Amino acid sequence: MVAPTFYAIVVGVGSGTGASVARLFAQGYPVALLARKESSYAPVVEAITKAGGTAVGISTDVSDAQSVDAAFARIAREWPQAKLAAAVYNAEAGFSYKPFLELAPEDLDRAISTGAKGLFYFAQKTLPLLLDAVGAGPKHPPTLIVTGATAALRGSVKFAAFAAGKFAQRAITQSLAREFGPQGVHVAYTIIDGGIDTPWGKDREFNGGVADGKISPDAIADSYWYLHTQPRSAFTQELDLRPFVEKF
Amino acid sequence: MVAPTFYAIVVGVGSGTGASVARLFAQGYPVALLARKESSYAPVVEAITKAGGTAVGISTDVSDAQSVDAAFARIAREWPQAKLAAAVYNAEAGFSYKPFLELAPEDLDRAISTGAKGLFYFAQKTLPLLLDAVGAGPKHPPTLIVTGATAALRGSVKFAAFAAGKFAQRAITQSLAREFGPQGVHVAYTIIDGGIDTPWGKDREFNGGVADGKISPDAIADSYWYLHTQPRSAFTQELDLRPFVEKF
Amino acid sequence: MVAPTFYAIVVGVGSGTGASVARLFAQGYPVALLARKESSYAPVVEAITKAGGTAVGISTDVSDAQSVDAAFARIAREWPQAKLAAAVYNAEAGFSYKPFLELAPEDLDRAISTGAKGLFYFAQKTLPLLLDAVGAGPKHPPTLIVTGATAALRGSVKFAAFAAGKFAQRAITQSLAREFGPQGVHVAYTIIDGGIDTPWGKDREFNGGVADGKISPDAIADSYWYLHTQPRSAFTQELDLRPFVEKF
Amino acid sequence: MVAPTFYAIVVGVGSGTGASVARLFAQGYPVALLARKESSYAPVVEAITKAGGTAVGISTDVSDAQSVDAAFARIAREWPQAKLAAAVYNAEAGFSYKPFLELAPEDLDRAISTGAKGLFYFAQKTLPLLLDAVGAGPKHPPTLIVTGATAALRGSVKFAAFAAGKFAQRAITQSLAREFGPQGVHVAYTIIDGGIDTPWGKDREFNGGVADGKISPDAIADSYWYLHTQPRSAFTQELDLRPFVEKF
Repeated sequence: MVAPTFYAIVVGVGSGTGASVARLFAQGYPVALLARKESSYAPVVEAITKAGGTAVGISTDVSDAQSVDAAFARIAREWPQAKLAAAVYNAEAGFSYKPFLELAPEDLDRAISTGAKGLFYFAQKTLPLLLDAVGAGPKHPPTLIVTGATAALRGSVKFAAFAAGKFAQRAITQSLAREFGPQGVHVAYTIIDGGIDTPWGKDREFNGGVADGKISPDAIADSYWYLHTQPRSAFTQELDLRPFVEKF
Repeated sequence: MVAPTFYAIVVGVGSGTGASVARLFAQGYPVALLARKESSYAPVVEAITKAGGTAVGISTDVSDAQSVDAAFARIAREWPQAKLAAAVYNAEAGFSYKPFLELAPEDLDRAISTGAKGLFYFAQKTLPLLLDAVGAGPKHPPTLIVTGATAALRGSVKFAAFAAGKFAQRAITQSLAREFGPQGVHVAYTIIDGGIDTPWGKDREFNGGVADGKISPDAIADSYWYLHTQPRSAFTQELDLRPFVEKF
Repeated sequence: MVAPTFYAIVVGVGSGTGASVARLFAQGYPVALLARKESSYAPVVEAITKAGGTAVGISTDVSDAQSVDAAFARIAREWPQAKLAAAVYNAEAGFSYKPFLELAPEDLDRAISTGAKGLFYFAQKTLPLLLDAVGAGPKHPPTLIVTGATAALRGSVKFAAFAAGKFAQRAITQSLAREFGPQGVHVAYTIIDGGIDTPWGKDREFNGGVADGKISPDAIADSYWYLHTQPRSAFTQELDLRPFVEKF
Repeated sequence: MVAPTFYAIVVGVGSGTGASVARLFAQGYPVALLARKESSYAPVVEAITKAGGTAVGISTDVSDAQSVDAAFARIAREWPQAKLAAAVYNAEAGFSYKPFLELAPEDLDRAISTGAKGLFYFAQKTLPLLLDAVGAGPKHPPTLIVTGATAALRGSVKFAAFAAGKFAQRAITQSLAREFGPQGVHVAYTIIDGGIDTPWGKDREFNGGVADGKISPDAIADSYWYLHTQPRSAFTQELDLRPFVEKF
């Protein structure tokens, strides 16, 4: 087997967005899938392998710098000659939807850990690799994509902790876009505005249960691939995605 | 010849964005090209025809309701059975880059006419057609895309008139997205942030003349096609595009 | 009688914001009150005079350049030696709250005329006067304040025309702030987000009729005076105002 | 001596904004001044006392929940019968202006601790007190004001860590405004856009050293007092402040 020239990394691979993104990017690159639990990434690795792609799952806690270090050491051993073409940060902690006075400091910590700290560690690991790939003749500009949400733009009742994490995440992503764009790395943020159509969300109603009232994770994946393939003369920094019936 | 089932309309077809969009959409649909002067659209019609596509050029002043009416009457005669799949509003008046006290009322009028009034007329003509197409089994949700600019987000020194037109245009587009999205029509706005690589701009330096320091009109066209093909479960309302070296 | 050293102008004086602003600024300056109809400004002129202030009412159509010219000629005759300390643009046309396809071009024209064109004429008249006042030792930096609304930030269903006018207005105001701030003129925009407690609004319910659920015009006037008195080391460009119970 | 009916708390009292705010609010209320080091608040306590006001300084680390608890226990002992009229969160850690790849995780932690966590603890302590004051007949609506910055709106090169903290802070403040506004508590955020004229900044040039090119901390204090005195029919949620010559 020939060592791959380029590969991709997806953080936060479970039943929704991350899995769709991983499956789609696996059509172009070998992919490393990072998730806290093996049970999250194992079925995705299997599906990709069955479809003829290459995938490696790595149990990682993105909010723990050492765990992130270990994951990247593992990736380096896996594909020692290859360059990083695309990195997707899609980690999500469940969030604490509570009146402010009922939130515990831990609710804020968790939102910040997954929203901001994990991205910070991940970006510090991936940006040198992406910069290194810029000169290696990639088909598309090396890309870092971060999954955002409406709560990255708007603080709302019961969203104080979650919004704090997402605002901080958007701040970091925007700062990175301004710093690394001119060096040839494409940094993009997506505002996911609506419920996502995952097995988890199956029984939850969004938009009155209307067809396509939830966002298809495959459609999100398509948008990530589109972002990745943009030439450097026309980078999108921020893009919103919502179901046609979503109020906004 | 079989009458086409779906067609597209592009307003503002000259040497840059409009021409690229027209050529790309012509790979999927017959296209009507509207521009003030025949000399603007004629070469594009020729290029599309030569490539095996179908294009009709119509001299139109979008800031004149009667001229817009006439253009749509002509389109209806051209393809009486067909439905409108996509409409792109890309009209641009040259703009008056002057200190505020040197601007004439006509500078404001011109910016508003092209930016807001023309879009108003165009949207009032196209939205009923796009709504009508929703039920006709289109491959992609019927789409209205409007070409915006940085000046739609930010009023700057010497940009008072131009920004007034672009802000107003964004207001209309956003209002339409909120009203017609739930009816199945995708309404999107693009923030073009940078110089465009047109023959007109050939001798103008942007970003110090660095390669890819100007936006490729073909890359803009790709983004419009991507927007058009988004499924209704994941519509993008607003998307920015800028060269990797652009300061923002 | 000694000629006043400084005076103020308020455009759009009726029963609400404009009247409150005029009464408050009349405690510091002679004020010229511009409104379309004498019946709008006459009671305010009377109230100010009765309270010991000086007010001149001038019938003006701000969307008509000649009418604006005439009003400023009148003001120059009234106070030939005085400098302009503060100018407030508070003109408001009634607005067309209709589905987009029911709007007439005139609805857009009206929104643009009052929102953008009138401000354009007014600013072209007042900015030279405000610049002239900068060097004349005013107590507070010469100030131009424009009354905005939520629709200046957000295009919504049935607000396409009104939002186009308010977005355009905000674009102009922001451009002026960036151009004339460094020359010592304070240009500010207020986002009025809620129903205003006017005689006109008396029977309209806002926020379920709760006390203080509508914005007090006197509170708006206080904010305008506060903006006017800010020193040039700390100018506010934009400020929102809403009732405590308003959803936003 | 009669126990005060209402008091104020200012966090982050040193040589700049906090000291000016404390001195101004001390003209209306006894004030508790919280700062990490006694040397920061001691001169302010002395100045207020000399001017006839009442001030209590408390050494507090706002990023440490127990330290915050202790400070509030101390305040409760100091004025056991009084209600909280106004709370100002002005804590600022020095910030790490570095290329992203040179930032340490501690730089992010520090920005988040002061920007978001400290505000979280402070708000959880003050909001119940402010709610309790709503019904106690205060002259002005009980108020929580948070000092923000341009970096709360925009992530820039070398600002990734600092912006993350300020974005998160704005998210929390905005969420609190939406939750507690309808309960009668005024929650406001200020965008300080420019260098502040402090002894610390004396030798640093801003805006080419032009007079008033730095923001006067007393002018910031005036704006906080103005915010505090707004009636509940017209709350400002966000307000920017910048020197007249500042580019924005």
